[in-house]
Amino acid sequence: MSNIPKIVILGAGYGGILTALRLQKELNYNEADVTLVNKHDYHYITTHLHMPAAGTDKAENARVSISKLIDEFKIDFVKSTVVQIRTQDKKVILEDGTLSYDYLVIGVGGEPETFGIPGMNEYAMNIRSINSVRLIREHIEYQFARYKREPHRTDYLTFVVGGAGFTGIEFVGELADRVPELCKQFDVDRQLVKIINVEAAPTALPGFDPELVEYAMQVLTKKGVTFRIGTAIKECTPDGVIVGDGEEIRSATVIWAAGVRGNRLVDEAGFETMRGRVKVDETLRAPGHDNIYVIGDNSLMFNPEGRPYPPTAQIAMQQGVTCAHNLVASIRNQPLRKFEFKNKGTVASLGKGEAIGLAFGKTYRGRTAAWLKKLIDLRYLFIIGGIPLVLRKGKFF
Amino acid sequence: MSNIPKIVILGAGYGGILTALRLQKELNYNEADVTLVNKHDYHYITTHLHMPAAGTDKAENARVSISKLIDEFKIDFVKSTVVQIRTQDKKVILEDGTLSYDYLVIGVGGEPETFGIPGMNEYAMNIRSINSVRLIREHIEYQFARYKREPHRTDYLTFVVGGAGFTGIEFVGELADRVPELCKQFDVDRQLVKIINVEAAPTALPGFDPELVEYAMQVLTKKGVTFRIGTAIKECTPDGVIVGDGEEIRSATVIWAAGVRGNRLVDEAGFETMRGRVKVDETLRAPGHDNIYVIGDNSLMFNPEGRPYPPTAQIAMQQGVTCAHNLVASIRNQPLRKFEFKNKGTVASLGKGEAIGLAFGKTYRGRTAAWLKKLIDLRYLFIIGGIPLVLRKGKFF
Ligand SMILES: Cc1cc2nc3c(=O)[nH]c(=O)nc-3n(C[C@H](O)[C@H](O)[C@H](O)COP(=O)(O)OP(=O)(O)OC[C@H]3O[C@@H](n4cnc5c(N)ncnc54)[C@H](O)[C@@H]3O)c2cc1C
Ligand SMILES: Cc1cc2nc3c(=O)[nH]c(=O)nc-3n(C[C@H](O)[C@H](O)[C@H](O)COP(=O)(O)OP(=O)(O)OC[C@H]3O[C@@H](n4cnc5c(N)ncnc54)[C@H](O)[C@@H]3O)c2cc1C
Repeated sequence: MSNIPKIVILGAGYGGILTALRLQKELNYNEADVTLVNKHDYHYITTHLHMPAAGTDKAENARVSISKLIDEFKIDFVKSTVVQIRTQDKKVILEDGTLSYDYLVIGVGGEPETFGIPGMNEYAMNIRSINSVRLIREHIEYQFARYKREPHRTDYLTFVVGGAGFTGIEFVGELADRVPELCKQFDVDRQLVKIINVEAAPTALPGFDPELVEYAMQVLTKKGVTFRIGTAIKECTPDGVIVGDGEEIRSATVIWAAGVRGNRLVDEAGFETMRGRVKVDETLRAPGHDNIYVIGDNSLMFNPEGRPYPPTAQIAMQQGVTCAHNLVASIRNQPLRKFEFKNKGTVASLGKGEAIGLAFGKTYRGRTAAWLKKLIDLRYLFIIGGIPLVLRKGKFF
Repeated sequence: MSNIPKIVILGAGYGGILTALRLQKELNYNEADVTLVNKHDYHYITTHLHMPAAGTDKAENARVSISKLIDEFKIDFVKSTVVQIRTQDKKVILEDGTLSYDYLVIGVGGEPETFGIPGMNEYAMNIRSINSVRLIREHIEYQFARYKREPHRTDYLTFVVGGAGFTGIEFVGELADRVPELCKQFDVDRQLVKIINVEAAPTALPGFDPELVEYAMQVLTKKGVTFRIGTAIKECTPDGVIVGDGEEIRSATVIWAAGVRGNRLVDEAGFETMRGRVKVDETLRAPGHDNIYVIGDNSLMFNPEGRPYPPTAQIAMQQGVTCAHNLVASIRNQPLRKFEFKNKGTVASLGKGEAIGLAFGKTYRGRTAAWLKKLIDLRYLFIIGGIPLVLRKGKFF
């Protein structure tokens, strides 16, 4: 039909949405056809998902309709699920159609990594998406209701969280805040409820300052979280988990928050990958594919010391910006830009009014850190949706 | 210790609470020791339970703390579960103690009657108590969340209600109101959700005017309820129900609202019973037991035409009043009063703003009937808790 290049963006997560927003701004009229594909008609704010998962906020507040973010006069949005990427044909197979591209951006996000632990895929839940956190929330509330009818089943009131990394810690912080409310609602004695955070590594929150980790564990322990650090989950069963030397923790609720990998879509597309991540070049392109950009949790990059950057929303967003720039440059035959990660810091929430953080070369804790977390979230809303979105959703963060 | 007679009331339901309130008013100082025993420290308003079961109101609004209703200077309240009634020893065995009595009032309410349908006890839920309706509500919400993760499981979105009597009808009315909300909350297409009301009898709402029944079914059908009248449930399984000639309705949620019986406690106490109900004399006493009153769902009485009165809150309340009167009369050696049921009418809710009713010899439907239902509920709140209770709970009804 037309001769103008076709850009297809897979995934409207942090990386994909930033790419789309930037292209929308930088491309001239009729310079390219841009299509954004996403499984849902909304974008979800992953960094907020620990709250609806625990039920301390509505899932509604952790998502934004994509049509509210992009300008559909400039970008076509297709709500569909990508089932295959065919690089040799320059085609993407959707569950209900096909798209051809000249340039492709892959940003479909990560998947849980269970490290082959038996039963984990079958019996544990993950904090990944709006649907998955709604399931967790309803599942938890359901256990309280079930317990009241079968009071010998204390395993209904035991909540096991695998992993004391970022996600695991933020989730137990919220859950510990929610439990007293649930106890009140269902007339359950708080003493009967157990939140057990199991972590195989020798410390919680690896990467954080040991002093901050100490602080975080104190705050959470006081809220009623039990830590089992240096304890590996060996198996997940319908009745709970087996840890360490075969000890069983009986629990009707296991949340697995201990690992993410890339995506089987990039494995299956024939790229060279490490745990589902494509080791991209400095301009964010897949090796050997001048027209394919891979960003966010689907990509793998190394810091100057040669260590892989952990997959975060922060790096995904920055990659989105560079990716859009390089797409425009390619089309205009201009030189591409190298991606450079600027670490703005990290803040982990510990529930209401409590957090720990590392930013601007300083450490933060308590109310100040919680406030910093809020600012980061508001800033993100501002970046993707401007003041209107901040006004609409910001008050919940 | 003392010589004053001991009255023990088992159950603080409609019958028991009315007995207690009346005794509190009519007895003189030190004329009797009154003890009220109830499984929970609250009284629940059964006629409101269809709403929290469907999730159109909070369970909190269907219960009142017993300490707010009775005067604990005049009546002792014991929160415990009765496990056995020993008439020969004049003792009641509680799960955690024993009580002796001179006069006993039995009002522990009914239990679901499953008519021996296989699997019904194991796999179906009942609308009976605060705990049971919280379970139903959470169970339903959980199914929506589960469906989003397993979209082939449309049985998660099929809700089977056994019984189109009073309870079944009121519940499907509320559920039909709630479903659009749940669909919105979980992004589920309303067309996929099925509410199926299965009734073995040849008509819904037996005892109501056929014209009103017609009206009720029209209202509910328009709201999306499917009726299977004249269809018996043969079996309940983990996968749904088997009806009629072996047809399977796959459903993850079966609510059994088709039958109540008396209580196994009165069967086990050695009274002569019919389906767990004691055929009491005209003064409400158990045959052969001058000191034992049986009221509400535990008792069986016949109307002047010789047909048994259906168990209702209305008759239980009126019995409570007569029972209290007769207890006081016995203590004072005065003649006992015969119980006479005054039918004030019946209203069945069909969800928000819709109902059908029969009162003062007239039939009502639509908004007027819904308003009548509300008035009956408010009147009850007034009887048990006065204006303060009407103010506190009444707005939710
Ligand atoms: C609970 C939690 C808390 C976190 N907190 C933080 C934090 O505080 N700070 C931080 O920096 N990072 C945080 N992260 C990490 C961060 O969320 C991810 O690194 C980031 O989301 C990656 O962005 P992305 O664009 O690669 O993918 P995502 O944001 O995961 O987006 C992927 C998108 O692709 C869509 N999609 C997936 N598969 C398909 C398909 N087959 N077809 C079509 N569409 C598809 C999805 O619906 C989604 O919209 C957190 C992660 C979790 C799980
Ligand atoms: C959903 C639903 C809707 C209804 N709607 C209406 C209506 O609109 N109008 C109407 O007239 N009737 C209605 N009914 C019927 C009405 O609720 C009953 O007939 C009425 O509650 C009977 O009163 P009761 O005092 O016998 O027992 P209940 O009100 O059932 O009270 C029994 C009490 O005993 C306690 N108890 C039970 N077992 C034990 C034990 N072992 N030890 C200690 N305590 C125990 C319970 O906790 C409860 O407090 C409805 C019933 C249901 C289920």
